[in-house]
Amino acid sequence: MSTTNHQFRLAARPVGAVKRSDFNYTNEPVRDPADGEIVVKILYVSLDPAMRGWMNESKASYIPPVGIDEVMRAIAVGRVVASKNPGFAVGDHVNGLLGMQEYAYSNGQGLSKVNPKLAPLPMFLGTLGMPGLTAYFGLLEIGQPKEGETVVVSGAAGAVGMVVGQIAKIKGCRVVGIAGGAEKCRYLVEELGFDAAIDYKSEDVMVGLKTHCPNGVDVYFDNVGGDILDAVLTKLARGARIVICGAISQYNNTTPIKGPANYMQLLVNRATMKGVMVADYYPRAGEALTEMGGWIGAGKLKTREDIVDGLETFPETFAKLFSGGNNGKLVIRVAEA
Amino acid sequence: MSTTNHQFRLAARPVGAVKRSDFNYTNEPVRDPADGEIVVKILYVSLDPAMRGWMNESKASYIPPVGIDEVMRAIAVGRVVASKNPGFAVGDHVNGLLGMQEYAYSNGQGLSKVNPKLAPLPMFLGTLGMPGLTAYFGLLEIGQPKEGETVVVSGAAGAVGMVVGQIAKIKGCRVVGIAGGAEKCRYLVEELGFDAAIDYKSEDVMVGLKTHCPNGVDVYFDNVGGDILDAVLTKLARGARIVICGAISQYNNTTPIKGPANYMQLLVNRATMKGVMVADYYPRAGEALTEMGGWIGAGKLKTREDIVDGLETFPETFAKLFSGGNNGKLVIRVAEA
Repeated sequence: MSTTNHQFRLAARPVGAVKRSDFNYTNEPVRDPADGEIVVKILYVSLDPAMRGWMNESKASYIPPVGIDEVMRAIAVGRVVASKNPGFAVGDHVNGLLGMQEYAYSNGQGLSKVNPKLAPLPMFLGTLGMPGLTAYFGLLEIGQPKEGETVVVSGAAGAVGMVVGQIAKIKGCRVVGIAGGAEKCRYLVEELGFDAAIDYKSEDVMVGLKTHCPNGVDVYFDNVGGDILDAVLTKLARGARIVICGAISQYNNTTPIKGPANYMQLLVNRATMKGVMVADYYPRAGEALTEMGGWIGAGKLKTREDIVDGLETFPETFAKLFSGGNNGKLVIRVAEA
Repeated sequence: MSTTNHQFRLAARPVGAVKRSDFNYTNEPVRDPADGEIVVKILYVSLDPAMRGWMNESKASYIPPVGIDEVMRAIAVGRVVASKNPGFAVGDHVNGLLGMQEYAYSNGQGLSKVNPKLAPLPMFLGTLGMPGLTAYFGLLEIGQPKEGETVVVSGAAGAVGMVVGQIAKIKGCRVVGIAGGAEKCRYLVEELGFDAAIDYKSEDVMVGLKTHCPNGVDVYFDNVGGDILDAVLTKLARGARIVICGAISQYNNTTPIKGPANYMQLLVNRATMKGVMVADYYPRAGEALTEMGGWIGAGKLKTREDIVDGLETFPETFAKLFSGGNNGKLVIRVAEA
């Protein structure tokens, strides 16, 4: 091969919001696969809030930080363009931690094959990928919503939140989304069928919760942390379950994270707070994908991807996650096919 | 009757630490019981951290606040000295929310009879009362410790903490207590059989946890909140259970409570945080008291009461809970018999 591989390599650990200067945009020739390896041409790469954590020199995380000068870790889908691994043929499409680059080498471990005839490729990074599985298992296994209960989800128009809310509707719950901006809130109610949406950028979340959750909050799926988590804690129903999925409001902090000051409401309301770590459920991904595939086919579960062209836009595109500038699952299209 | 009843009535909602001027020390003659009523002469009254919360004008608590001019709410044991209620005879001993006073009237609801031949009366306010039941059900039902696991308890030399640690030892766990002062730590290890104790007043709690919990913390029973909760969050084992019982470090705050900044460790460690509300378990008090009685009889569960003489000492005695000045269950002896 004589193609060039462009790559984003971590140049410095970001302080606060991610800047272009935190990365080196490098290039190197694509080499042939070694024995047992495949070469993947990356088509779509996923932008996920968790990536911000991977950039930090964290002492206690679930995955080691990305090293300085290493290619930025990212989930992507691509097509096998060369193979010396009997498990993969040229032309296969694969999904996994392929990195923020144009070409990736892999021994196949941790990759899963995807069938582009079943769904558009970006959907395998969203509803049929890590975010969708997070929503499915976090809501159903940890949140355990029951018919007629009230489910609140923050980051509701994001890749995880929109799936959480729609599954909760399928399960017969009253669903209230918290999102930023009138258009996102309109989308949640009018297009996804949420019962109500609270625009945290223009409304008082406490007032909104009081209005839309008259019987309190039975399940809260938290993607944002910070003041919104504290607001929901004051509106819990007896026996509520809080699913901790993310804290995007806190990831760019240069000061310590703001912990939930109202956590003693867990005691008053006999409530539980538990984290969801999607990797724990990967062995059961098949059951979730089968069920979600059925819902998509039946028109009960809608998906939306926000596709930005060009690997080279990565630092600025990534920033949209934190400003709320994306609509649905944010992905970069690296190549056409 | 022509006896006088001295009472502490709430005069003002305390700001920060409780002061004597937050109460009026009043007196009134003791009247005869009305039909269905009993009159109880209070012998011992309990000082519990939760009382600090009852003094606040709280919007969302599990029990209404004490009203201004009302007798301060408190758990006490006493002896029936007059009865027009067929369920209670003069000479019976009873335990319940009798208030910070010398005599109480009651229709009997919410009172339980205690037998002074089975244990010294103050023990019914400690290990055989609300604190002991909190420890028993909070640890066993919510913490669910398994043999060989590491259990950490804060406020370990207090009425709840000392019972938690000893039950965890009975269940075959490694037990580490966090307490304030060398003497309390010595007591925990040498007299109660804890495996280790960390003196938060003179030691770095993080370092102590690292030393004494080499496999991480499986169960954390939290009585204190604040920085100690945050420290333990960084040392959780996979699948840890955090039992939220109290947050005494925060109850006198004049600024908002400090929430646990490290709560995202719940996610990383697939851990759960849940509150214990002892009242939920009162219908099962019998089973707990039977089992704890057996342990006390067998010398496996030791109790300690810190008895202060004189109802009139209430504001200053109560303050000992927050400075850590008490050794074991803190009670006031109101009368000899």
